[in-house]
Amino acid sequence: MKVLGYAAKTPTAPLAPFTFDRREPRPDDVVIEILYCGVCHSDLHQARNDWGFSEYPIVPGHEVIGRVVSVGDSVTKFKAGDLAGIGCMVDSCRECNPCQQGLEQYCEEGNVQTYNGHDRHDHQPTYGGYSQTIIASEAFVLHIPQGIDLKGAAPLLCAGITTWSPLRHWNIGKGSKVAVVGLGGLGHMAIKLAHGLGAEVTLFTRSPGKEADARRLGADHIVYSTDADQMQSVANQFDLIIDTVPYVHDINPYMSTLTLDGTLVFVGFLGDNPPVSTLPLILGRKSVAGSCIGGIAETQEMLDFCGEHGITADVEVIKMDEINDAFERMLKSDVKYRFVIDMSTLSASAK
Amino acid sequence: MKVLGYAAKTPTAPLAPFTFDRREPRPDDVVIEILYCGVCHSDLHQARNDWGFSEYPIVPGHEVIGRVVSVGDSVTKFKAGDLAGIGCMVDSCRECNPCQQGLEQYCEEGNVQTYNGHDRHDHQPTYGGYSQTIIASEAFVLHIPQGIDLKGAAPLLCAGITTWSPLRHWNIGKGSKVAVVGLGGLGHMAIKLAHGLGAEVTLFTRSPGKEADARRLGADHIVYSTDADQMQSVANQFDLIIDTVPYVHDINPYMSTLTLDGTLVFVGFLGDNPPVSTLPLILGRKSVAGSCIGGIAETQEMLDFCGEHGITADVEVIKMDEINDAFERMLKSDVKYRFVIDMSTLSASAK
Repeated sequence: MKVLGYAAKTPTAPLAPFTFDRREPRPDDVVIEILYCGVCHSDLHQARNDWGFSEYPIVPGHEVIGRVVSVGDSVTKFKAGDLAGIGCMVDSCRECNPCQQGLEQYCEEGNVQTYNGHDRHDHQPTYGGYSQTIIASEAFVLHIPQGIDLKGAAPLLCAGITTWSPLRHWNIGKGSKVAVVGLGGLGHMAIKLAHGLGAEVTLFTRSPGKEADARRLGADHIVYSTDADQMQSVANQFDLIIDTVPYVHDINPYMSTLTLDGTLVFVGFLGDNPPVSTLPLILGRKSVAGSCIGGIAETQEMLDFCGEHGITADVEVIKMDEINDAFERMLKSDVKYRFVIDMSTLSASAK
Repeated sequence: MKVLGYAAKTPTAPLAPFTFDRREPRPDDVVIEILYCGVCHSDLHQARNDWGFSEYPIVPGHEVIGRVVSVGDSVTKFKAGDLAGIGCMVDSCRECNPCQQGLEQYCEEGNVQTYNGHDRHDHQPTYGGYSQTIIASEAFVLHIPQGIDLKGAAPLLCAGITTWSPLRHWNIGKGSKVAVVGLGGLGHMAIKLAHGLGAEVTLFTRSPGKEADARRLGADHIVYSTDADQMQSVANQFDLIIDTVPYVHDINPYMSTLTLDGTLVFVGFLGDNPPVSTLPLILGRKSVAGSCIGGIAETQEMLDFCGEHGITADVEVIKMDEINDAFERMLKSDVKYRFVIDMSTLSASAK
């Protein structure tokens, strides 16, 4: 099937129109016409080969919302006309211990990424949601709650689940105290979801001017992490700190704000983190951990929760041909809080 | 009460005989004649002010086994003639959330250390087990199982509980895979206790020649952490790694050997640890944590377990006046695996 998309053809080339082949649908496949696709920082990183494993051309996009066009003979959960979503994964081995537990993101054979991956059957490259149409096994397709704003729902498929999964894994709910480091695409979802789960939420930030926005998103408190007195005032408080900062940074100031058995979890930074003192770890049985997106069942749970609670991302909708400008603005954190591409603009953008 | 002990009077002075006052017993106190006292690395660190908070003179020793001489009027759990033990703590606030949970080591007001601490009531310095007699509230005194070897039991009060507590907190038992980094006082107890709990135990070591000893202690496997092939052969295996190494070291090679949701726990090193890659943390939801000794109820549980399973430390018994040599040998790791002072030699050593 010939599909129009937008691709990076080299690490330095701007994204541009690209027509490519998608496989013919298999019996368990769902064919989705894409309506909206969120723009994740990892789209930019992989388009530019920042992580060193990009295979070109790359069609980014793993925050995909669309409408089902057709389904294979064995598909039972979707029918033509349904709303559907695809996140960061389109397959996994489905048999290993993590897969059996619904933790496909930790598949021992490696999950198949929605783009810059390889199909497990035909070994062809996977292409993401900056395109007209996407095809995936129904096991990796999500139901989108009725009535949810589709533009704002797209980022739930990555930014949403990436912050939801640690909140659920570390049992956050009423009575919990959660802090969020960084107010970007992930951070603003972490605040909304932690607040939605009933936790008392604090935003750690280094720059002033974010109070009103943070409170509107659901934060109960804002703490300037550069202010020693403010940091002291929240010592030994937090059950969970979700650290969304996507670059090297010192987490030691945050460790003292964790309570006994508290955890700081990285969700946004892949790399070597600066030295951490073992003192708070040992003297408070605290942990530093990481968490990667979320499993398919957990993603559906999160979408259903967002549907019930009216939670979506704050988005700025762009046209497909504005993507290169959007990448530049993301580098300057000039977005509140996620770009989402209106895919109906794709064909015009390709002329 | 005048008591004879051995004390460091300055950071550079050798330990030497020292007579000091212990408080008169209170109604809830147990008075213990000390029979054996283990020699912990932290005795050396605090005698020499390596951590910067030593108050002199210091009478070290927090692995204390003795016999009850007398008890206060309100004491119900001990009577004269009982065997009794004291570990790293002799008091805590007893009211905060951690104390109420039996986690006195994490007391929000700080537990009272057996030595180099201050009594909560009279604010006098606490003096440890390198002495004839010790006095503590029965709430912080342990029962010693009948029939256990007393010399080998002394190190259970610190080295034992420090490794037992993380094993229990992270639910280690039959079917678990545990690795231990470092084969010293803590490491050899970690192997014995993990083995006793039914886990499959691996010793990580950097130096050859430890196989026979490690297997005798209960290790099922020995892996040279400097051998990339051996490290690769144990990738993604361990539920828990107990890291007993007492100096700065790189934990990155161990992180890839943890399984999904696995934890590396520091028990032996207080300081800044070198940079850790967030990659295994995020891609395997792994954690780096710390753990500090253990609570009183947990210590009793561990002692009872050791009594039932015939587990004690491997010790070399020394006389009191050999302590300064013992410190020097500890710095060279020349002890298998714990020095224990026979306190009956104290009075002769003071002549």
